[in-house]
Amino acid sequence: MPAFNPLVETLAPPPVPSVFAWGRAYDGSRGALIDLSQAVPGYPPHPTMLSLLGETASSTAYCGYGPIKGDAALRQAYAEHLSAVYGAEIEAGNTHITSGCNEAFVSAAMAVVGPGQTMLMTNPFYFNHDTTLAMMGVKMRTVACRAENGFVPDIEAIAAAITPDVRALALVSPNNPTGAIYPADLLLQVFELCRDRDIWLILDETYRDFLPDAGRAPHDLFAQEGWQDRLIGLYSFSKSFCIPGHRLGAITAGIKAVEQIAKIMDNLQICAPRAAQAAVAQALPALADWREQNRQEIGRRAQALKTVLAKVPEWRIDSIGAYFAFVRHPFPSLNSAEVAERLAKQAGVICIPGMYFGEGQERYLRFAFANADVPTMGLLEERLRNFQPA
Amino acid sequence: MPAFNPLVETLAPPPVPSVFAWGRAYDGSRGALIDLSQAVPGYPPHPTMLSLLGETASSTAYCGYGPIKGDAALRQAYAEHLSAVYGAEIEAGNTHITSGCNEAFVSAAMAVVGPGQTMLMTNPFYFNHDTTLAMMGVKMRTVACRAENGFVPDIEAIAAAITPDVRALALVSPNNPTGAIYPADLLLQVFELCRDRDIWLILDETYRDFLPDAGRAPHDLFAQEGWQDRLIGLYSFSKSFCIPGHRLGAITAGIKAVEQIAKIMDNLQICAPRAAQAAVAQALPALADWREQNRQEIGRRAQALKTVLAKVPEWRIDSIGAYFAFVRHPFPSLNSAEVAERLAKQAGVICIPGMYFGEGQERYLRFAFANADVPTMGLLEERLRNFQPA
Repeated sequence: MPAFNPLVETLAPPPVPSVFAWGRAYDGSRGALIDLSQAVPGYPPHPTMLSLLGETASSTAYCGYGPIKGDAALRQAYAEHLSAVYGAEIEAGNTHITSGCNEAFVSAAMAVVGPGQTMLMTNPFYFNHDTTLAMMGVKMRTVACRAENGFVPDIEAIAAAITPDVRALALVSPNNPTGAIYPADLLLQVFELCRDRDIWLILDETYRDFLPDAGRAPHDLFAQEGWQDRLIGLYSFSKSFCIPGHRLGAITAGIKAVEQIAKIMDNLQICAPRAAQAAVAQALPALADWREQNRQEIGRRAQALKTVLAKVPEWRIDSIGAYFAFVRHPFPSLNSAEVAERLAKQAGVICIPGMYFGEGQERYLRFAFANADVPTMGLLEERLRNFQPA
Repeated sequence: MPAFNPLVETLAPPPVPSVFAWGRAYDGSRGALIDLSQAVPGYPPHPTMLSLLGETASSTAYCGYGPIKGDAALRQAYAEHLSAVYGAEIEAGNTHITSGCNEAFVSAAMAVVGPGQTMLMTNPFYFNHDTTLAMMGVKMRTVACRAENGFVPDIEAIAAAITPDVRALALVSPNNPTGAIYPADLLLQVFELCRDRDIWLILDETYRDFLPDAGRAPHDLFAQEGWQDRLIGLYSFSKSFCIPGHRLGAITAGIKAVEQIAKIMDNLQICAPRAAQAAVAQALPALADWREQNRQEIGRRAQALKTVLAKVPEWRIDSIGAYFAFVRHPFPSLNSAEVAERLAKQAGVICIPGMYFGEGQERYLRFAFANADVPTMGLLEERLRNFQPA
């Protein structure tokens, strides 16, 4: 048998299916499984979203190939949405539609770094970012985020890590896995640092719609002079619209970067699925109120998790934000994969081990609290209190 | 402004949009535009396909993430379909669903070759295969296909080109751009050659459903002992079901290769769009008769193109097959891009210049004859006869 590509063969298998397998091994003795693993909103899409998807998918208008960069209607609607969110002037030409945010990251990363070049990220990181760079042959270096800072990186640490071989810095805010929300002034410092060092800044804001401060721009980077020449923003429609199965994401970038990304997207898959593009173009303005209600609901879930974990203080929330909490488990002799496996099988709670997100995260578990409603969150108290890993 | 990835920056822009732009510059003076450019069937999807897509897209059942390798129903339906097409036993576990066949190629290629390694293809080649390898940093070498052989490669030429650095050979049959159908015995020789040289064979059969011989296996490779350890088949649901906008393709491979491909697909986009998967799982058996009628219709279109070009013999069909013809234009002083641009703007016929598919193809144009019905094909005679590039 001929060899596989060593860059791919040495990758660990995708982690989420293995976590689901732990959940399937749970015998139900403590009650229904509580799924805090893969980030998926625990409520269905709005009926209007579903009916729009049904209309567009059954229409001949969207059966054919579309523009590589995305359908004009969605690019325009998204640019208007972005302009409102950031209080900045963002044009349709500054957007590129992708098939989900993983593809947005692949395309953005490939536009700015090639095999043998280096990208800087944080530790912990979103595991697909790590494996994506690894399979591309891109070197990845990390800046450690400290628990005592709520897993928000220090600007000095970032500055020190930008050695001459670093071509780009990729950040995720609100963060996956920690939930940490990077302050606007830190992001501005990071932007200025990247400008001074002449490197790209890729900012993944998949969880932007769940920020606690409604109506306030997450940051001012898209209002900075020359942002087009150094900043690439990533986003997913999956979470806000509850449609991950329809695979839709987006990139915000300067026209020159969009041209490079379009070459990559053409090779990857010619264009993103079109029916979902047409449906979301309409849903983006139409379902603004519904998304705002969900944002508030996710806020209540965050509060519920805090309340519950305060009752089992040996489980400590070291970071919590827009979608996730990074929780310190109380078993120093076990690593996070061992704890997560037992927690799934014995207590019926599935979550992702911290060590899947980087070295040194053996004490942490990622709880995707947005997946579970407030009553379900209440059940965690008993599950955690009585949990003794066997 | 920081540099882009040089592997991407040096890629030519995607060619299809530029060809469309030539078409838009046509003033209509010779009648309606005849589109023989991008491979898209010139008829709509079956109403059953549209209604299935509407049902699945509006269902909450397919809004969430699905299995990385594809939904079980589609993998099973496709495995049964493959088993019937090839007269071989192919299991659901031998399939991986992708978001179109470009993504199938990216995933298959990345599974077997990494940056700095070499893949062998034919010249001419499908341009996205070339640019995909280039952006991955993979070296591409080609075997020349000769017009006098109908653009079917020689086994001796392939054997000579498999130098020790070659890790995989990628072939497309029925071929894009030439339409050439590689004989089953040649494909078996190629398979045995790849086995003897211990390299991977990637076989893209996007246009398989339009082969002239109905009910006969395109080749016997999937019935060969050990095919799982060296063969990877690629396919697209876009052409047969007329749903390129829904982005759905598939890979056929051994279990070990499927595991590697799943790691790549997880990074690229987690899973293919799910509503289309569910709809096609049902349409695959349900629309078999309709696909057979279309196969026959495409055969009539091939015959119509031959009849028309026989009347303007200075335009010569050097290869014609399941979807495309590779046509030699009569203007030796102009290259194929110059001819195609003028043909679009002056005669209202758009097609893809041969030189987009490889060096030395300046005398050729790719006609995607499957796009145009028989009456439209008849209009070509006058358009070509009166065409004098200005």
